[in-house]
Amino acid sequence: MLGRSWSRGPPMHNTSPLYAPLLGDAGVQALFSGAAQAKHMVAFERALTAAMARAGLVERAAAGRADAALAAFRPDLAALGAGSLADGVPVPALVRALRAAAPDAEAAAAVHVGATSQDVLDTSLALTLDRLYPLLLARLSDVLDAMRALEARDGAAALMGRTRMQAALPILVGDRLAAWRAPLSDLAAEGPRRRAESARLQFAGPVGTRAPDQVSADMATALGLGHGPGWHTDRRILTRTGAWLSEVSGALGKLGQDVALMAAAGEAALAGGGRSSAMPHKQNPVDAEVLVTLARFNAVQIGGLHQALVHEQERSGAAWTLEWMILPAMAEASGTALTTAARLLGRLTRLGDAAA
Amino acid sequence: MLGRSWSRGPPMHNTSPLYAPLLGDAGVQALFSGAAQAKHMVAFERALTAAMARAGLVERAAAGRADAALAAFRPDLAALGAGSLADGVPVPALVRALRAAAPDAEAAAAVHVGATSQDVLDTSLALTLDRLYPLLLARLSDVLDAMRALEARDGAAALMGRTRMQAALPILVGDRLAAWRAPLSDLAAEGPRRRAESARLQFAGPVGTRAPDQVSADMATALGLGHGPGWHTDRRILTRTGAWLSEVSGALGKLGQDVALMAAAGEAALAGGGRSSAMPHKQNPVDAEVLVTLARFNAVQIGGLHQALVHEQERSGAAWTLEWMILPAMAEASGTALTTAARLLGRLTRLGDAAA
Amino acid sequence: MLGRSWSRGPPMHNTSPLYAPLLGDAGVQALFSGAAQAKHMVAFERALTAAMARAGLVERAAAGRADAALAAFRPDLAALGAGSLADGVPVPALVRALRAAAPDAEAAAAVHVGATSQDVLDTSLALTLDRLYPLLLARLSDVLDAMRALEARDGAAALMGRTRMQAALPILVGDRLAAWRAPLSDLAAEGPRRRAESARLQFAGPVGTRAPDQVSADMATALGLGHGPGWHTDRRILTRTGAWLSEVSGALGKLGQDVALMAAAGEAALAGGGRSSAMPHKQNPVDAEVLVTLARFNAVQIGGLHQALVHEQERSGAAWTLEWMILPAMAEASGTALTTAARLLGRLTRLGDAAA
Amino acid sequence: MLGRSWSRGPPMHNTSPLYAPLLGDAGVQALFSGAAQAKHMVAFERALTAAMARAGLVERAAAGRADAALAAFRPDLAALGAGSLADGVPVPALVRALRAAAPDAEAAAAVHVGATSQDVLDTSLALTLDRLYPLLLARLSDVLDAMRALEARDGAAALMGRTRMQAALPILVGDRLAAWRAPLSDLAAEGPRRRAESARLQFAGPVGTRAPDQVSADMATALGLGHGPGWHTDRRILTRTGAWLSEVSGALGKLGQDVALMAAAGEAALAGGGRSSAMPHKQNPVDAEVLVTLARFNAVQIGGLHQALVHEQERSGAAWTLEWMILPAMAEASGTALTTAARLLGRLTRLGDAAA
Repeated sequence: MLGRSWSRGPPMHNTSPLYAPLLGDAGVQALFSGAAQAKHMVAFERALTAAMARAGLVERAAAGRADAALAAFRPDLAALGAGSLADGVPVPALVRALRAAAPDAEAAAAVHVGATSQDVLDTSLALTLDRLYPLLLARLSDVLDAMRALEARDGAAALMGRTRMQAALPILVGDRLAAWRAPLSDLAAEGPRRRAESARLQFAGPVGTRAPDQVSADMATALGLGHGPGWHTDRRILTRTGAWLSEVSGALGKLGQDVALMAAAGEAALAGGGRSSAMPHKQNPVDAEVLVTLARFNAVQIGGLHQALVHEQERSGAAWTLEWMILPAMAEASGTALTTAARLLGRLTRLGDAAA
Repeated sequence: MLGRSWSRGPPMHNTSPLYAPLLGDAGVQALFSGAAQAKHMVAFERALTAAMARAGLVERAAAGRADAALAAFRPDLAALGAGSLADGVPVPALVRALRAAAPDAEAAAAVHVGATSQDVLDTSLALTLDRLYPLLLARLSDVLDAMRALEARDGAAALMGRTRMQAALPILVGDRLAAWRAPLSDLAAEGPRRRAESARLQFAGPVGTRAPDQVSADMATALGLGHGPGWHTDRRILTRTGAWLSEVSGALGKLGQDVALMAAAGEAALAGGGRSSAMPHKQNPVDAEVLVTLARFNAVQIGGLHQALVHEQERSGAAWTLEWMILPAMAEASGTALTTAARLLGRLTRLGDAAA
Repeated sequence: MLGRSWSRGPPMHNTSPLYAPLLGDAGVQALFSGAAQAKHMVAFERALTAAMARAGLVERAAAGRADAALAAFRPDLAALGAGSLADGVPVPALVRALRAAAPDAEAAAAVHVGATSQDVLDTSLALTLDRLYPLLLARLSDVLDAMRALEARDGAAALMGRTRMQAALPILVGDRLAAWRAPLSDLAAEGPRRRAESARLQFAGPVGTRAPDQVSADMATALGLGHGPGWHTDRRILTRTGAWLSEVSGALGKLGQDVALMAAAGEAALAGGGRSSAMPHKQNPVDAEVLVTLARFNAVQIGGLHQALVHEQERSGAAWTLEWMILPAMAEASGTALTTAARLLGRLTRLGDAAA
Repeated sequence: MLGRSWSRGPPMHNTSPLYAPLLGDAGVQALFSGAAQAKHMVAFERALTAAMARAGLVERAAAGRADAALAAFRPDLAALGAGSLADGVPVPALVRALRAAAPDAEAAAAVHVGATSQDVLDTSLALTLDRLYPLLLARLSDVLDAMRALEARDGAAALMGRTRMQAALPILVGDRLAAWRAPLSDLAAEGPRRRAESARLQFAGPVGTRAPDQVSADMATALGLGHGPGWHTDRRILTRTGAWLSEVSGALGKLGQDVALMAAAGEAALAGGGRSSAMPHKQNPVDAEVLVTLARFNAVQIGGLHQALVHEQERSGAAWTLEWMILPAMAEASGTALTTAARLLGRLTRLGDAAA
């Protein structure tokens, strides 16, 4: 009989029991999890019902009863998944379940008034991004701290500057560190604005024509999101978040490539490098290589978000679904890259020429 | 207190409880699962020890004792995952565990003789591909059957042929069906050769220089794999499997795009289209759109496998790890596309002009 | 004997006599032309020599003689090309030619002091981008004007709103136009900041460690460029310009896809559509399709700029050269897309339902 | 007054006077040139008219007069380019010009019978590929020869084998050379089959439904092309040619990355490396880096050909035009990579440890 550890686990690089510790990111996964997404969807519906009531567009008492039911509601994620299979999105199934949970027909009718699936899912994404940026920015801050610590310890050490893969002129370790730090420091500074631009309510209605008004303003306030025109077919929130994620992983990929080359040239010493199954004497700069991998992974993915800019008519199921397949994977890759970089920097026991 | 359905599930499109029914593929996931991979790794080690004993390179009795231990071995997937984090690959941790499971030092020493991590993991991939092709080919056969059924029913119906998005000249539904079928039929016919070329043993040793010999020939036979030169740095098995997967999903994406356009023009009728949360009258051709999504997804991913052709020196951790992040996702996308296409074709209650 | 028109012309989509009128952009080509680039390189060298003299770092009279020689210098582009083949960059050959043009050794020694090839080429790129943004922004303004004209004429006409490729709810042509305009209007507003961020002097010296100072400040002023830290290995100017270019072409790709679908559904009428060689009755919405092509082209290319973020050590010839192959092609695709969109919008003789 | 060398030349990496010697390929450019393409188009029309006459479908004498006119015809490439702008393809303009060149109406009517633009252009592509493969295969043969020469000279020299960027175990230079050679040797062997599969007549008519018959068989024979079903919407000829091109450049990119690392580690000596404008002591392995660049370039582009598999209805102008923008650039990159690799290999004055 097979034990539990032998049982089938999820398979891909980020969720496989074999590879998730190396390539997965539990923090990012939690933000995109089914439970978190369902919670955001319900939050959207509660904010909508409340704002509609405040505007006098649904009856206040019915809205109150609906809200109580929604507050107590626990989604059946499997049922939502079945709804996705049937409808392409989990929202119709969710709305049916929410209405069924309402105590009466009037309360049921106060749910999802004037909204469409895309409003719910895009707002859930906005709420997710609102949490993703701070998570990654905190890690980015750790990476920058680790760089400053290395600067304090090794910044004055000698290092051969190398251009086009050849020894060029002597520099200091501090010069290399400054080059690593510059883009990451900028990306950290830009993070809050990127977050604010990304974490924006979507409430544009069935064909995307609903203009912002007091109802949507109230909803945005309740959800802690930005307020403005709808973005049903204007998907730059996706390309820009993707760009930020890939610029972060790209800057860390440069760091990883450099550390791998420094380790090969004896210009860096690492505590606890990876072991080889065949060669006990080796210490592999595994974390450094993984940073290169993650940078190239995101550089591949970013093209998918740009393909999804060709978003036909009032809603493209094809383009929209492509976003769902790409953006979470990019977010996780950048999350993993930040954790990996912090670990790698912490393991560097020496930077600079061994003789120095 | 949150119930079980509210608990955190895995997050991404293919494993999220919310989206996996639409975008995930349990069959492909099982092939790439941690358990399946670990089983393949142990199979490699057993075949290696046996072949080494047969060649007189390890002591026969010790090999026998090792084999008995390996046959009874149940891997601790979490420990292997921790090994990946430490070493970049799960193999050193697996080899330690296998040796620890051996009854004595001599038997322990009979394990993993002359092999390196890449031999184990690439052979596991080969075993996986050996199962993946038949799984997908069986589904492809179903898709082709469904097309033949539609041909029998609707092949003679009139359809407006359209070029450059404009009505051109009348054709028959059978013409359109033939265009859908041609690439898929070819890809089905090519499948067995692609499988044979892909399902090849890797046993080239620590720096990839080990030549094929009787030991590797015995291992290949035992594992049911092809035998030939090592492919440590020649990664065309990956680009070619990826190409086949993307050509399958691409051909299905063309089908999906066509069906979505036919549904919009009243040239196709679908039973059970997706519902809208806002517009009860709508029937969305969800499956057709998902086929376009999956085609574009794989078209994005294929570039990552080609990036990984730049595989420096005797083993590139960076390039190799990129393959792990890309290929399983492509396999799953093609698997989902085939299932989706079969379902979509089965739901087409009419193809051709409504008046016909 | 073959006549001139039969002679070999340059071959690719943007320069072939057969395709350049459709897919090429003479305005963008002029900005990236060898002559324009060489002019920028000489401008860099003149600004450098002058600033160095002002700072007392090269002798003032020698600098003056050098400047006179540089002002009169006419580069031999073929010789620079031969230099690229030999050195990977045209700069060493250019510097030799400039020094040879100097009237004496002292003046020759006043040229290229403290600079490296990358300073020259990256600054030339900055000067190019400084001209590219206004060129494209002027066209973007034309496109927005054309949209406003259509809004005035057809904005109130009825149109079926379509989601997931299906008829959803009636909207107005003005709604569709507003969706087309929104991202382009934003991108136009962002253009000047993107330009200012991109058009930045590079003068960081052989190994990228030179800090900004009065010399570089003077050079930036003379060249009309921004001044700040060097960006030898921080290549976000490239990814961000690429993102802007692709967001422009992506927004126009959405427009093109919509117009092609509208033409197919009789919701748009076009004057002067493309002819078919086989079907005289057809009017192909060629411009609309080309917009989709260009959007997908740039969505493919953007990944190359992100791959180039992995810029090892103090200068990566491999990553840097990849930028040269990608960015100009993206700029041209966006330039062509803007021209194509303006032409397409001008040919729309009707938007909205034919009956309206 | 500006001299000729100062005049505006074509701008992009492959045609700019500044960069074409490094990155362009005159041989490949000639194959895709406007003149070559126009010649192929006329060849298609001649073969068509002749085959139609042979089949009794056009009057024999009229066909003979048409053929004489076509044989003497010299296309005005600029007029064809204007045709592309108007019609999206140069074929309608070409057909008008060919008919105008015919001596009488009957002869004019014997031109382009039953064919559509795609037949003409796809067959021109097939004729181009029929020439491209031999061109590249001849160069590939040179590269393999150069490798054999290095094997003879340095094969027995010692080299440190390196895995995951770290010294692993000693190997021989011959081992590294064998790893470089293996994929290229395979790709060379596969070339003729790829060529035969790719160089296939297209003659499927206006909506792609024309079945192969004696007419098309005659045409294929006359043009030296393969004969079989049409491939109007089945675009695997493109993805497969692209895959072969990218596998070639990818294998050469691995070689380039290795040589750059070997040069950095003193394991290779190069005659005539690139010079630096700032550091006279440096020898940059420019060719090695360019090989990495070209590999990554093609790895980016291959995704575009897979995006174009989503080829809607009977002809997608959007997908088809994307092919034209991508495939020639890939062919040229592979062509340049082969030339560059041969030059690089010829400049390697030593491979292996300096001490050896």
